[in-house]
Amino acid sequence: MLELRLVQGSLLKKVLEAIKDLVNDANFDCSSSGFSLQAMDSSHVALVALLLRSEGFEHYRCDRNTSMGMNLGNMSKMLKCAGNDDIITIKGDDGSDTVTFMFESPTQDKIADFEMKLMDIDSEHLGIPEAEYHAIVTMPSAEFSRICKDLSSIGDTVVISVTKEGVKFSTRGDIGTANIVLRQNTTVDKPEDATVIEMNEPVSLTFALRYMNSFTKATPLSNTVKISLSSELPVVVEYKIAEMSYARYYLAPKIEEDEDENGD
Amino acid sequence: MLELRLVQGSLLKKVLEAIKDLVNDANFDCSSSGFSLQAMDSSHVALVALLLRSEGFEHYRCDRNTSMGMNLGNMSKMLKCAGNDDIITIKGDDGSDTVTFMFESPTQDKIADFEMKLMDIDSEHLGIPEAEYHAIVTMPSAEFSRICKDLSSIGDTVVISVTKEGVKFSTRGDIGTANIVLRQNTTVDKPEDATVIEMNEPVSLTFALRYMNSFTKATPLSNTVKISLSSELPVVVEYKIAEMSYARYYLAPKIEEDEDENGD
Amino acid sequence: MLELRLVQGSLLKKVLEAIKDLVNDANFDCSSSGFSLQAMDSSHVALVALLLRSEGFEHYRCDRNTSMGMNLGNMSKMLKCAGNDDIITIKGDDGSDTVTFMFESPTQDKIADFEMKLMDIDSEHLGIPEAEYHAIVTMPSAEFSRICKDLSSIGDTVVISVTKEGVKFSTRGDIGTANIVLRQNTTVDKPEDATVIEMNEPVSLTFALRYMNSFTKATPLSNTVKISLSSELPVVVEYKIAEMSYARYYLAPKIEEDEDENGD
Repeated sequence: MLELRLVQGSLLKKVLEAIKDLVNDANFDCSSSGFSLQAMDSSHVALVALLLRSEGFEHYRCDRNTSMGMNLGNMSKMLKCAGNDDIITIKGDDGSDTVTFMFESPTQDKIADFEMKLMDIDSEHLGIPEAEYHAIVTMPSAEFSRICKDLSSIGDTVVISVTKEGVKFSTRGDIGTANIVLRQNTTVDKPEDATVIEMNEPVSLTFALRYMNSFTKATPLSNTVKISLSSELPVVVEYKIAEMSYARYYLAPKIEEDEDENGD
Repeated sequence: MLELRLVQGSLLKKVLEAIKDLVNDANFDCSSSGFSLQAMDSSHVALVALLLRSEGFEHYRCDRNTSMGMNLGNMSKMLKCAGNDDIITIKGDDGSDTVTFMFESPTQDKIADFEMKLMDIDSEHLGIPEAEYHAIVTMPSAEFSRICKDLSSIGDTVVISVTKEGVKFSTRGDIGTANIVLRQNTTVDKPEDATVIEMNEPVSLTFALRYMNSFTKATPLSNTVKISLSSELPVVVEYKIAEMSYARYYLAPKIEEDEDENGD
Repeated sequence: MLELRLVQGSLLKKVLEAIKDLVNDANFDCSSSGFSLQAMDSSHVALVALLLRSEGFEHYRCDRNTSMGMNLGNMSKMLKCAGNDDIITIKGDDGSDTVTFMFESPTQDKIADFEMKLMDIDSEHLGIPEAEYHAIVTMPSAEFSRICKDLSSIGDTVVISVTKEGVKFSTRGDIGTANIVLRQNTTVDKPEDATVIEMNEPVSLTFALRYMNSFTKATPLSNTVKISLSSELPVVVEYKIAEMSYARYYLAPKIEEDEDENGD
């Protein structure tokens, strides 16, 4: 039996909005440590890893490890029916082919049960080792979202270049070029407004803006985003959620042609 | 001669928004008691009855009973040109084939006259007798609207079931099922937040959500909605307006097949 | 060399929004007195004249008169990437085929450079002589915008008639007619709410609403609009910007057929 009660139900609504455009169907894995998902996007280019730790739930009961295949579009349709202040409980019975989402209004005057059919989904779980990165940029998530959106109006790819002084986002397209530089800045009133750069060596990598823009759907989950860059690894774009939970996105850099290296 | 002056002109704007999607053309009937409309929706399934009593107007002159055929889409276009704080006056001359809507800004610095052509519309006025209902539910209109909209994302019909404890709204569709229960609740800070159930006997009826969603276009007219249910009569969904005026919608229940009765 | 620094960068964003729907490509002319543009709309019916005087810039350097051909759609795409509080600097080098827009955030933590390719555009500069007008109406720009939009839902043209008492905007279409009268009104709390009529002789002229609606895209530039009317000249619709700058639109009246004159 499975019963996961999340007082801040809006969190689950935001999580679905953060992944449903990237992934159509996926297995949610439930164990004693938490409720998680790992899935490739539908074009098999980016990887999404989501973890909601059991500590973040008011009540968390998971008798045995379970994998539940869900259509994320349908799940999102159901969660949209929950009020933003509702308590959401995920319920499942062993061997059942459905999952139930229960929404309770704060006053307990309205109780809704939405029952969704589960799917059989083949998936292999990738082990993602901890790694050393050349540079890690932590910045306001809304700023990162704005930059990716703005650059998309000019070009298709973004070059992210990190030096000690700051991080540069660049693109080029038919109508011209764009460079946006953010300086390291830790003397801010609110910690979440800081731009912090941890750098072992300078790095400059190119990514498809289309995927970056999909990742920024997670912006409502966190005030800050952490971007971990290495020339030998996929970039990790991470949105931390309370209680050590997170939504992480992985994307391999594009191999730059020489002309792009020099033409900038 | 006809001259109806409504200080709260936004009320007439809201009335049009509440009926224009359901009814294309209709006769507005004007008598000494009020300004009213009764019309079947364009698919001849639902009935709309609207009454604005003469007491609700600052000035109300109607020399003789008049019926004015109007295209509600065109009337809505004109009323959208009135500001929300404008005073609206409806003017007609005996035998004229036009009606004039006059909009006065609160400061009287802006006066607009919109003249619309009238239409000849055949219509028969149905007598709707007062009736006894098995159950009457009064609830916040925004909550009813939200429930109808939410259920529409799952299924096409809603089963409304009333017991002494509360009212249940249910649907089922390809992706699963949904049940939303509202408890009777009269201990609220604001009377319009109450959910009140008057029940003679339990009732469970099925309706097309498409029409229910059209009815909820009247939500801005009133904080509460009254739903009168009987297994032998069309449901009445009523939005009360000040001064004993109202917008009422009538819809016959769908005949449930057995499998639906048992399958829930 | 050219370097124009505008602390209130949102002004340039608004200017582009005010003209980009009317004009596709145009030359911006830069001289010691200011940054200006004069262009016919793409259907060669209306004329746009824009002037941002050098006094409005924090720093203004223009070594020699320059004409820079720009695609306004592309320029608008780039300026949309500037924050509303950003300082915008326009930079150009003599003989270069590009222009650079630099956006600085108020805290200087984010600096963006957008480089756009210039175009060769043939254009002739029309001399527009100062003229005497039969009537000049100054009114709140939002009110003028609202009236043009409202009348567009009824008809295609607007008749603007000025008498000493006020200004009347009229239209007619398939569904009926509309007349909106604004009275001269100078006793208002805020000067920008006044409707002021300076009249030498009564005038009544007809214009295409489509163009009027395009002109009102300049509404965010100014709280008031000045409409200068003469039966022998194109109307001038002017939005004043601080420091004697402006956006002006010119449109020739339509020649009214007799039936329209009498049918009103």
